[in-house]
Amino acid sequence: MSGAPDPRTLAEARELLARTPVLLDAWLRGLSEPWLSATEGEGTYSPRDVLAHLLDNEELDWLPRLRLVLAHGEARPFEPYDRDAFRVRFADWPAARLLDAFAAARARSLAELDACALGAVDLTRTGMHPALGRVTVAQLLAAWTVHDLTHVAQVARVLAKRWTHETGPWRAYLRVLDDRRG
Amino acid sequence: MSGAPDPRTLAEARELLARTPVLLDAWLRGLSEPWLSATEGEGTYSPRDVLAHLLDNEELDWLPRLRLVLAHGEARPFEPYDRDAFRVRFADWPAARLLDAFAAARARSLAELDACALGAVDLTRTGMHPALGRVTVAQLLAAWTVHDLTHVAQVARVLAKRWTHETGPWRAYLRVLDDRRG
Repeated sequence: MSGAPDPRTLAEARELLARTPVLLDAWLRGLSEPWLSATEGEGTYSPRDVLAHLLDNEELDWLPRLRLVLAHGEARPFEPYDRDAFRVRFADWPAARLLDAFAAARARSLAELDACALGAVDLTRTGMHPALGRVTVAQLLAAWTVHDLTHVAQVARVLAKRWTHETGPWRAYLRVLDDRRG
Repeated sequence: MSGAPDPRTLAEARELLARTPVLLDAWLRGLSEPWLSATEGEGTYSPRDVLAHLLDNEELDWLPRLRLVLAHGEARPFEPYDRDAFRVRFADWPAARLLDAFAAARARSLAELDACALGAVDLTRTGMHPALGRVTVAQLLAAWTVHDLTHVAQVARVLAKRWTHETGPWRAYLRVLDDRRG
């Protein structure tokens, strides 16, 4: 990002971060198994996998990294994040339990974020990502928000693709069916 | 679609069709203007445009076409659908009003769908799409459902792209930012 971060970044990130668990709950709680377990093929996420990943990520990734930047700056690089650990950690958790736990974890994150009371200067503070190098607090907030959105888009895409053939001739108009997998 | 449609199509479509207005409400009601009016460029939809399009579509497209198939089969082709009419029809409607109206229209559609009490044979009945040719009731139900999902994915993508540059080095991990526009 060039120049100073927009001071609205924090408030605008928070709006969407607070909504993600609520929209996922409205969408996925009580949904039938064929939808919840649909994937785009081996190694890709089902909607239930997305919930488990978001929960794992919420506890281990964004807020802990923000905490590290605020306490240690670039002196202590972030712990690498294991993208597959959720498969063991939350094996066999039903969707309802994942939704409850994600909503609780996100609420804890936002409470801690609020308690940080980040100001304009804080948004420019920098930390060290183990693979990506120097990152700012503003970039972390934006990436956290966009990470939610990438997984919401993924859930819609995975659900849609389950019925790629069922749409018959309409497939030509439904471009989500041609989107990337994974 | 080859072979007989899966008899679960109706119930599985209905599950997702009922959830779309609720998830959009949880996500978009009260969201700030920069998010609601974000687009991917000229001629593309903002999240508010998606709501207006879904409302317009709900009143003029899927259920009216189902009604036509059940009453007239292929003898009366569907009315062509004007994809841009919503811009005039719902000009200046705030998001909250669009959300209320879409939820009400979808509830009416599902009540009428339930009243049709479609059986396995009904799912194979055929109508005539003005551009796509012969389509079945099962295909219409699948396309209606996937159409919702294509627009949910679009909202996530449009919101995410507003912060493409703000994510800084994280952009490399956030693949939704490289997805197609429009």
